[in-house]
Amino acid sequence: MSAIEVRCVRVYLTEQDKYQRLLARLHDVEKVRGVTVFRGISGFGRDGHMHSSHLIDTALDLPIVIEFFDVPQRVETIIAHLRELVPPGHIVSWAAQLET
Amino acid sequence: MSAIEVRCVRVYLTEQDKYQRLLARLHDVEKVRGVTVFRGISGFGRDGHMHSSHLIDTALDLPIVIEFFDVPQRVETIIAHLRELVPPGHIVSWAAQLET
Amino acid sequence: MSAIEVRCVRVYLTEQDKYQRLLARLHDVEKVRGVTVFRGISGFGRDGHMHSSHLIDTALDLPIVIEFFDVPQRVETIIAHLRELVPPGHIVSWAAQLET
Repeated sequence: MSAIEVRCVRVYLTEQDKYQRLLARLHDVEKVRGVTVFRGISGFGRDGHMHSSHLIDTALDLPIVIEFFDVPQRVETIIAHLRELVPPGHIVSWAAQLET
Repeated sequence: MSAIEVRCVRVYLTEQDKYQRLLARLHDVEKVRGVTVFRGISGFGRDGHMHSSHLIDTALDLPIVIEFFDVPQRVETIIAHLRELVPPGHIVSWAAQLET
Repeated sequence: MSAIEVRCVRVYLTEQDKYQRLLARLHDVEKVRGVTVFRGISGFGRDGHMHSSHLIDTALDLPIVIEFFDVPQRVETIIAHLRELVPPGHIVSWAAQLET
C-alpha cells in the first residue's frame, strides 16, 4: 500500500459560465489527473459577477462544480492559469492523500 | 496572486429534511459566502433520525448535501447555529484555501 | 458542542464500474458511517482502466463518486479493503471534523 500527497480543487461556476471551455483546458492543456463535473440543484454566491445575490433555483443557471486533484506543484500551476479565467473567490483547494 | 484560509462545510441531509429552510437561513441570516446544494443518487446513513439504516435508493428521499465555505471564524458561528437544526453526525468541515 | 476527527473519502468511478457492489460492501460489510453517491455530468480520467483518455460526456458512462467519512482508524481499514476493488489513483481522503 502506498499513497501520495495531492491537492483537491473545486471550482464553483454556473451553467452560464461556459464551463466546457474550462474543462477542455484542464483536459487538453493542463492534462490534469482526472476531472469530475457536478451540477448542483440549487445555490447562491455572494459575488455578483458569477451569480445574482438572490437564490438561484431555476433550471436556467444551476451551479456547476469542477473538481480535480493532482500533485501540489501541478495544482499550483493550474490554479495560477485558472485565475485568469475564473473571478476571485471561486477556487477552493485543500491537501489530501491519493491511494496509488 | 493571493489566497485566504477558509473552512469547507458539508451538511448531509435528505430530501425529506426540508433543506430549503436551511438554505434560506444560510442565505438570509448567515449570509454565507456561497452555497451549493447537491442531490446524491443513492446513499445511506447510520443515524436513524436522518435516514433509515437500509439502502435508500428511491426517488422519494434522496441524499442532499449542502456545501459552503467561509472564513473559519464565521464558519464556527454558522455551525453553532446549524447544530440547533441538524442532528449530530451530519456536519463535516475542514480547512481549505480560497483564491482571492 | 463537541466534535471528533474523521477522514473524508471520495472514490472516483464511472457508471460502468458496478459501483452498487462497492456501495453494498460499504453498507453491509464495512458498516461505514454514512455514504453518499453522486453522479457527475461530465469528466475524464488519466487512467485508461477507468475512463478513456478522451472526454466522456455521454449518458452511457458518467462519473460516479462514492463519498463517505468515518474515524481515521476505520477509514484506514476500509481503504485497505477498497484497494482490492478499485484501481490505483481513484481513492482520495483527507482529515476533517465531524460535529457530534
